[in-house]
Parts: sequence; structure tokens; C-alpha cells
Amino acid sequence: MRKLNPEVLELSAEERQWFEEAFRRCARRVLLATTLAGSGHPGGSLSTLPSLLMVYALARVNPENPRDPERDRVVISHGHISPGVYSVLAEYGFFPEEPFLLEFRRAGSAFAGHVEQAVPGVEWNTGNLGQGLSAACGMARAAKLKGKAFRVFCLMGDGEQQKGQVIEARRWAVKFGLNNLCVIVDVNGLQIGGDTYQVMPQDLAAEIEATGWNVLEVNGHDFEALYRSLRNFLTGEVPRSDRPTAILARTVMGHGVSFMENDARWHGMPLPPDLCRQALAELGFDPEELDQWQERRKNHPVSFPHQSHDPEPVEIDPGEPLLYGPEVKTDCRSAYGKALLSLAERNNLPGRPPKILGLTCDLEGSVKMTAFRKHSPAAFHESGIQEHHTAAVSGALSREGFLVFFSTFGVFAVDEVYNQLRLNVLNRTALKIVSTHLGADVGEDGPTHQCVDYLGLLLSLKDFEIYLPADPNQTDRIVRFAATRPGNVFVGMGRSKVPVILDEEGRPFFGPDYRFEPGQGDWIRQGEHGTFVTYGTMVSRCLAAREILSQRGLSVGVLNLASVRPFPREDLLRAAEIGPILIAEDHLVETGLGARCAQELALAGKAVRLRLRGWEEYPSSGKPDELFARAGLDPESLAREMEALIRSA
Amino acid sequence: MRKLNPEVLELSAEERQWFEEAFRRCARRVLLATTLAGSGHPGGSLSTLPSLLMVYALARVNPENPRDPERDRVVISHGHISPGVYSVLAEYGFFPEEPFLLEFRRAGSAFAGHVEQAVPGVEWNTGNLGQGLSAACGMARAAKLKGKAFRVFCLMGDGEQQKGQVIEARRWAVKFGLNNLCVIVDVNGLQIGGDTYQVMPQDLAAEIEATGWNVLEVNGHDFEALYRSLRNFLTGEVPRSDRPTAILARTVMGHGVSFMENDARWHGMPLPPDLCRQALAELGFDPEELDQWQERRKNHPVSFPHQSHDPEPVEIDPGEPLLYGPEVKTDCRSAYGKALLSLAERNNLPGRPPKILGLTCDLEGSVKMTAFRKHSPAAFHESGIQEHHTAAVSGALSREGFLVFFSTFGVFAVDEVYNQLRLNVLNRTALKIVSTHLGADVGEDGPTHQCVDYLGLLLSLKDFEIYLPADPNQTDRIVRFAATRPGNVFVGMGRSKVPVILDEEGRPFFGPDYRFEPGQGDWIRQGEHGTFVTYGTMVSRCLAAREILSQRGLSVGVLNLASVRPFPREDLLRAAEIGPILIAEDHLVETGLGARCAQELALAGKAVRLRLRGWEEYPSSGKPDELFARAGLDPESLAREMEALIRSA
Repeated sequence: MRKLNPEVLELSAEERQWFEEAFRRCARRVLLATTLAGSGHPGGSLSTLPSLLMVYALARVNPENPRDPERDRVVISHGHISPGVYSVLAEYGFFPEEPFLLEFRRAGSAFAGHVEQAVPGVEWNTGNLGQGLSAACGMARAAKLKGKAFRVFCLMGDGEQQKGQVIEARRWAVKFGLNNLCVIVDVNGLQIGGDTYQVMPQDLAAEIEATGWNVLEVNGHDFEALYRSLRNFLTGEVPRSDRPTAILARTVMGHGVSFMENDARWHGMPLPPDLCRQALAELGFDPEELDQWQERRKNHPVSFPHQSHDPEPVEIDPGEPLLYGPEVKTDCRSAYGKALLSLAERNNLPGRPPKILGLTCDLEGSVKMTAFRKHSPAAFHESGIQEHHTAAVSGALSREGFLVFFSTFGVFAVDEVYNQLRLNVLNRTALKIVSTHLGADVGEDGPTHQCVDYLGLLLSLKDFEIYLPADPNQTDRIVRFAATRPGNVFVGMGRSKVPVILDEEGRPFFGPDYRFEPGQGDWIRQGEHGTFVTYGTMVSRCLAAREILSQRGLSVGVLNLASVRPFPREDLLRAAEIGPILIAEDHLVETGLGARCAQELALAGKAVRLRLRGWEEYPSSGKPDELFARAGLDPESLAREMEALIRSA
Repeated sequence: MRKLNPEVLELSAEERQWFEEAFRRCARRVLLATTLAGSGHPGGSLSTLPSLLMVYALARVNPENPRDPERDRVVISHGHISPGVYSVLAEYGFFPEEPFLLEFRRAGSAFAGHVEQAVPGVEWNTGNLGQGLSAACGMARAAKLKGKAFRVFCLMGDGEQQKGQVIEARRWAVKFGLNNLCVIVDVNGLQIGGDTYQVMPQDLAAEIEATGWNVLEVNGHDFEALYRSLRNFLTGEVPRSDRPTAILARTVMGHGVSFMENDARWHGMPLPPDLCRQALAELGFDPEELDQWQERRKNHPVSFPHQSHDPEPVEIDPGEPLLYGPEVKTDCRSAYGKALLSLAERNNLPGRPPKILGLTCDLEGSVKMTAFRKHSPAAFHESGIQEHHTAAVSGALSREGFLVFFSTFGVFAVDEVYNQLRLNVLNRTALKIVSTHLGADVGEDGPTHQCVDYLGLLLSLKDFEIYLPADPNQTDRIVRFAATRPGNVFVGMGRSKVPVILDEEGRPFFGPDYRFEPGQGDWIRQGEHGTFVTYGTMVSRCLAAREILSQRGLSVGVLNLASVRPFPREDLLRAAEIGPILIAEDHLVETGLGARCAQELALAGKAVRLRLRGWEEYPSSGKPDELFARAGLDPESLAREMEALIRSA
């Protein structure tokens, strides 16, 4: 592929000419691909083409080895310009143009409507705007942490600069000294709604300068100007060489085709065939070519499926469990903090890059990351009250050969950043979220801080494993287990102190011989007349209810479902064989574990006496025990309901 | 209450002294309340007290009529300073201090840990940082739209300035000319993680100036300086009188108590009793008072429950339905656009403030709001690619006597803004979200744009009604129905054109005599051997599957559940009486309508042969029919599965 040496001050005449011609060749592909697919985004693809051509020419990327760990990363944040990206990658030999032109936006092909890392040369799936810079920050930070020389280029649209997450990412990049990060904004001045300044007034240069970045402004159609600004970044010839750099590339949407220029219609609409032919002719190509491709596309089977792009692996020693005896009364989050420290002591070794990273959003003490920070200061990332960015940057870091823990309260770790997590999942990240302060167990901070809906959301995220430990012992095991998992894992817990769960002999139930197995329930107690199914802070309340019932001559089991995904189906069905089931949880009833269990029972065709107990309304501000009692989630109420359920047979 | 006249240039000596003394009285309440509750946020409460005292003294608010529609609005964005807010409101006579001191953070009381509008004088529940300014924008915009003179003051913390949503709100305020909006930031320089600049580097003044606001910087403990800056805002004596104004009030956290000052510990922790006594003495109060209150609090029953604060009503004429005949093939979103225009024609009358508002995020054409914009340009709010802000501002507008429609794609209307919607619900908003582009029906734009998880999320939002129309006729009826509902309503639809659903005689099923009833299913077809339960774009696929089965001698019903919440339980149970049920949807299986139905069946103790068909994995980029066929959601596959289900009896 065409490569440039940034030590040279300017482009040669030959190079300038080559780029002009390459632009025409890529423009041809953009027009063909979108018209052939009958959908797509030609306008911004054309205006970004010169930047794309120049960035890949200067980036250390190799079409022969597109996943080389030492490569420069090129992140496309405005994922809708996929036709432009694929055109340039084809130009540089990452793949032939045929599959792209024949399969763009076809089911089963890697050449999706918005860029996906399923295509060689693409680093990050985007399409929901404003998230790409956060991912790029993660990659740039990974280079710093590992002492590697790779750089990160992030191409962005100007419309997406409106997203608040972008400024969060900018500040984070300054805080962590990401001078190996360069943003190139395609300032074509148009978005779907028309003129970007009319849609939303924004002085882009002033906003970026206010965050302390280097800002360069260039004509984005001028290859020489683009080259010079990018080489300034690469050689550190910028006002502040310790800071990231933004290049504002002023362009015209639809650049290169006279009748497309500055027309917002072509943002998200392909040219109809007649106009496409006209555009091809204007670019100097045979207009009839379109019809040949159309014919070929008709019976073309998909030949270029998604290419795998696994996260860089990281080998973790999970260490030995910390055991909590019957006398201990602590909170699960403290057990998490201790487990995290223990993992850091084993895996973050002096003189080497850390393997384990921790991120939080202004809640270090509450989520018990202080010991970790003290042990591994460089691995700890206080990311401010910027959850959207932090969820995304954590995901990106988790693909770069780190074990990444992101910890904050449930409302911030799940409710606030759901869509960032969804994009992480699509990017096949390997993030570990350990969320403290779930449920009304948060107490006095009140409903804004009481996350009673996390399961409805997490179960909607396809590949997230979900674990909800019942006590400090189980927390320790689950955190160590999560540390060795290749994918995305959520570990959730309440805020309050909880007793160590004991077996019938008074020894810790999750004792020295306990081994956490995903998809298995824990029969804390067996019973003959019915079963409490529960998890987390409700386990001890159910155990107390069981004691009350036992005094009334009823034998009721307690089944702890700490593994919500994978789901312990066999254990639930076993409970259904025994008798009635009461599911108790610190969660909204409609979308919690009860709902998940009910679904499983219905699919199994089991008719069982079933009660779901949790929050019917949002809880309020108050001490947890008071709140639980008001909602009938205290041991006495649970016992009464179970008794009625049993006696209703 | 103490009132100031902003026409006067400066405070009198008497006034200055009164404020100094009022500060001490409020500081006492802050310390007592937090220590008595054993939790809460005294540090920021103390530093914000002078601003709070001055703002309420200048705002047109009346403790005798705290919900007067003409009142100035005071929004507290950093909701954790509730002790400061309640102390000042008690000082000004909105309520006596007793219930506040005795009930702060107690279950059942209005005096929650984070401010809630359940307390007279409070406008908006906050606690999740960075959202209050968006709500304040909604109120300020409401004044502009109605030609009212009220002003909006928004008090904020400095830590929360890190949230990206804040800059989205700032730009929106400029776009819509909100010079009646004043932000007062308590710049105490500390957040939970310590020094705000260390937590996240930010040049606050530069960032705000970059968005074009007036920025004033003052000593936030100096009543005279606070008075002058606020009167500058109120009299328009600011550099740009057409712009909103931000006052950066430099303060010291823990102000007024020597040993609390500049100590981040007291951000979120109350003084222990001994230190509280010491602080009371330092402020000139009897330290023993604490013990008396402690004693009184012990057996004090909650006396000050949540005070109602209903949204201002708006009377809407829903008009006459538009009917779509059998020959029409259009998309539901076009039917929405026509219904919205028709509503606007009836309710947004020339020469009067609009009753119906529309907001979108750079997707006006896609969500079919163009005709509405042309009819009611002042009522249309293009809010840019700023979904977080837009969801929140829409919620606030919906409480100010407008019928508010917020429309965008499903991934943006639900996935991206879930937590903003959750805070809306806690604020008892009356928002109508009409979301187009649900499901894999979006097609070629691929997984980032295919919202296949909305039900898992919406069902987790307590009071959202959920309606998913099957065709243009039902869309029209549901949109008009939603327009008359008092609460939050979600109406969702796909992108593609769909046939008009017909009855067995070939007439529109949702014809002239149809009336939409929430909580009722539509038996599009009756059947003897089993039932397809479905909604939205899948209805026509199920009807086609029914035709296939009919040729095989099987009679299968099609039940459309357009009303997901309230849930049509009776119809589902009736289907369960008939025979097996196959639930088909363009949604992830695990959290979709199938899961919701299974839950209902399990709770009813019904053992029924049940299949849930939807997405087991995220769909990909491609034409909808191709995607559906690949996943077995095409008519032939559905027929085959239903047949197997029936024959498995």
C-alpha cells in the first residue's frame, strides 16, 4: 500500500497526483456501493475520503497483518461513512473491491451499513454517534500503559461533536496525557437536519481548545494540508506536545461530484442509478459499469463473512480465596475490594505494565477501590463524573490485553450507560463490571440512587454474564472467577453489611471447599414444603423467614441463584418439583429474577404455585430495613406469604 | 419571607446582616439534619447555602402558593445538597423546620436524601448528576413558548460539570434563546474523589464561554457579590442579554465550620455527634440541642409525606381518525406523522401558544415530523445529536402544560436515554415518546441501529404505558389515544412499509368502528388449534403463516398485543385455553413480549405448550426479509414451528 514518511516536510508532486487519483477511485467505489445497495451514506463518505486516504497512508498499518498488536489504530467514529472506509481499505489492499461492491449491506456479509471490526482494518463498531473517541482513548491509553509506540487516529463527523460524551472523552484524554491520539473531524457543515450550526450552535474550535487540546484547522480536500497537519501530530510539532491533537478538516459534503456538493440529501441516501451513472462519468469512469455490477450482484452469494477479531488475551492468576468466618459482618463490596487488591498483588508486578486496570467515576471509596489504587496507582483510573465515556473507554481497554474492572453504583453502571454497554457487546469486549449499591439496599440516598431495574437491562445485553453474590465469601469467589472469564461479566451487590451465610452446622456455606460454578444454584437450605428462590441481600431475609416457618412446622428450602446468566435452570425445575416457589428480590418485580424464573417455568410447561415478591413501585428514601418492611419484604411478611402459598394447595 | 428588589443596586447593611444570620441558622439545620439522620451531604450544602438564600430571596416564589404557575422555577441539579435546600426553604417559611429535622431521610417522609418535588419549593427530583440543567431548560423554554415572565434558576455543583449532558443543555439553551435562565455553580473545588481539577481537568469558565453564555465569577460567600451578579441577570445587565447566564460562585466546601472547610470527607458524611455539637457551638448555638432532637426523633411518626405536584394539565382535542384503506401500503411512521399534523391543526392555533410540542434529534425526516414543523415551527425543537439532554428537556416540558412528543429511533429513544427516562418517571412527567425504527426491521443500518431490546428496558420503567401498533390505522388511533393520556406513554413502530391489516371480509381490521382500548388484545383471526401472539411488523408475517397452515388443514388464530402495558392478560389466558401459543416478535427473546407473556402464564399456573420466537442473537446488516428468514422469523418457518407445536400434543 501507499506509505508516507512523516519525516519528509511535504508531499512530492507524484504523491499529490497519486492521492488525487486515489480519491477518484475511492469516490467511484462509494457511489457504486451505495447505489448498488440502494441505501447508505455517500455524502459524508466523499467528504471524509481525503482524510481517510491520508490517515491510513501515514498510520503504521499493514494489510497483510491487519491485527498486528503493534499497529496504529484507526477508529472511525462516524460509522455511517462505511462506504468511504471500505473504499479506502480496498484501495490499500486490505481486501479486493469485489466483495465490498457486491455485498455492501447484505445479510451475512462483513460489509455492514455501519463500520464493524468484522472488516480487516476496522478497529471498532460504531454507528451510534459520539462513542468512537472514547474507544480511541482506550486504545491510546493502552499504548501508554504498555509502553508501546502505536498511535491512535480517530476520524469523526462534525454533527456528532454535539454528543456530550465527546467532551467527556476529550477531558479524559488530557488527564491521561494521550498525546498519541489524533482526532480528525470532517467539518462538512452538514448533518441530516441541515447546516450543523443551525441544528445546534457550536464553536467547535473554541470548545476543543477549552479542553486544552491542540487544534489545527485545514482544508480537508487539500492533501498537502492534511499531510502537514498529520505530520505535525506525528512529529510532535504541535503547540503542546503532551496533549492530544484535533485536526478540523473543513470539507464539502458530497465532495468531488458537482451536483452532490453541499446537499444534505446525500447524507443518508444513495444516488438513484441515473445520477450515479452521471457521477461516474463526471469522475472519469464508464457509467455503464453500474449496470454490470447490478447484474453481478443479483446472484452473488455472500463470500466475505465477518472476520474474527478477538480481544488480546491476558493471563490472570486468580490466586487463593480469602475466607470470611461466621463472626465476620462486612459488606460484599469490601470483599470485592480485598479480592481486587489480592488480584493486583498477584498480577500487577513491579516494573511491568499492569495487567489489571480499575476505573471508577468519583466513587473510589464507595466501591472499595482505594487499596487497589494504592497498590497499582498507574492502573487506577479516576474518570470523573463521566459515566458514558468511562463505560466505553473501559470496554476498549478490555480488548487491549488488560483485565478491566469498571466499578460504580448500579444506576450509573447499568441504567446510565446501557447503550455504551450495548456497543461494547457488539464490539466483543471483555469488560468486568463490579457494581456496588444495587437495590433499595442503598437506603437513604433514595430512588435516584436505588437501582432496582438492573436485571431487566442486563438480560437485554446479549452476552453479559450476570452474577449476584450472597455474601463476602461468595463475592470473593465470583470476583476471582470473573477475572478469568474471556467475555463481559457483571457482578452486582448491595451496599449494606450482610452476615456470612452459614450451613446447617454453622460453618460458612461458601467455605474452603466451595467452588463457584456458573449456571448452578446454591441450595443453602433444603425444604419439603416449598422453596424461597432468592439472591444477594435477600438471602439472609429468606433464611430468617425460613426459621419463622420452621417454628410453625413448615420446612422450606432456600435456593440462592447467584448465577442469573447462565441461568440455573435445573435447580429451578427441581424447586418446582418440591412445591410452591416464592421468589424474593430487591428488584422491580416485572423484570427481575422472578420474571426470568417464571419465563423458564412457563417454557418448561410447569404449573407451579408461584409468587414474585420485590418492588411493585419505586422504593423511597429511608433505612433499608424500614423500606423492606413497608413493602412486605421483611422476614415476617415473607414467612406469612410462603405459609399462605403452601396452605393454598 | 425575605424578599429583595433587584432594581436596587446593592444590599443594605441590615440586609447583609440578615443574610449572615440566616446563613448561620441554615447551617445549624444542615448539621442537625445530617447528624440526626446519620447520613447525608453537609459539605456542599454549606457551601451552596449563600447562593440558595440569595436565589430564593430574588426569585418570585411564594411559600403560601408554592405551585403557582407564574412562579420562578428554582432547580437544584446537585440533589445531594438537600439539607441545604430544605434548610433554606424552612427559613423562608415553606414549611416548619421540625418535620425536616425529625424526618430527613426517613421512609415515608417527603424529606428524602436527594431533593424531590414532593417538598414544596422543590421543582425537580435530582440526584443523578448533570440532569438538572436540562430540566431547567425545559422550564425556561416553557416560559418563552407561553410568553410568560417567569425565570429559571438552576443551582449546580462543580463536579457535575463533568457530565457531557451539561454541555448539551448549554448549547440548547443558546439555540432557544433562554436568556431567562441563570445557572449558579457552587465552585467549591471538591468532589468525592478530592480536588475537582485533579479528578478531571476542566477550565469551567472557558468551556461555558465557548458555548456562548454570559459567565460571571464571584465569591460565593459574599452576599453582596451574589446579589449583584443575580441582579445583573435579572435586569439584563450582562454582556449578551439574549443569552443565558452562568454565575461561577467560588466557595469553600464545609463553609462556616472551621474544621469542616475544604475537607472532602464531609461531602457525603455527616458529622459524628461530638463534632456536630462542636460545630453548633462554633455557630453560636446550644450544642446540647442535638441530644434533644435525637430524643424527639426516636418516637416521632412521619408527619410530612410526599406533597403532590401534578403536571400542569393541557386539554387536547384528539380529532377524528384518519383511515387507511386496503389498497394503502405505507409505514406506521408516516401514519404517525399525519396524526401528529392533524393533532397540531386542531390544537396549535394561530396567535396562541402551541399546546403540542415536537422534539427530535437530527432525524426529523425519518421520524416524519416535517409536516408538524411546517405547521407549527415554534413548537418544533430540532435538538441536535444530543439525546440525553433532549429526553430530559422533553420530560420537563411535559410538566409545563404541553403535550410533548419526543421522536427518534428506538436505540436513541430508549437504549441511549434510559436513565433520563427513569428520572422523568420519578418526576412524574407526561411525556409521549413515539419511536420509529424499532427492531431488525431497520434493516441495512445494522445492529447499532436495530433496537431489539426496548421492551426489556421499557418494562423496567414503572409507569410507562407501552403501545406497539400493527398498521397505519392502529397507529393513528394509538397516537390520538396517547395524546389524551395524563402520564408517560411509549408508542413504538418499525421502519418498513406494512400492509393494512384486514378482517376476514377484506375490510380494514382497525376500521371506522375500531376503538383502541389499552389492556386489550386484538383477535385479528380466530383459530381452533393454536394461536400466534404477536405485534407490530410481525403481524402480517403471522397472518401469512396462518394462511400456509390453513392449507395444511390447521386453524390458527392471530392475537395482536399492541398494548403491552397495560398488559392484555385476559386475551392471553384465552389463547392459553385454545391450545399451543407461539409468540413471534422482532425483539430479543429473553426480554421481549414472549418473556412477558410467559411470566403471566406462569403466575396464572397455566401449563401450555409455548414457543418464543425472536432474536436469539443480535441481527446484522441486511434487508429485513433476508434477516428474518435467516432467523426463522419468516412466514414459512413460523408455520412450520406452529405445526410442530400443535402436532407435539
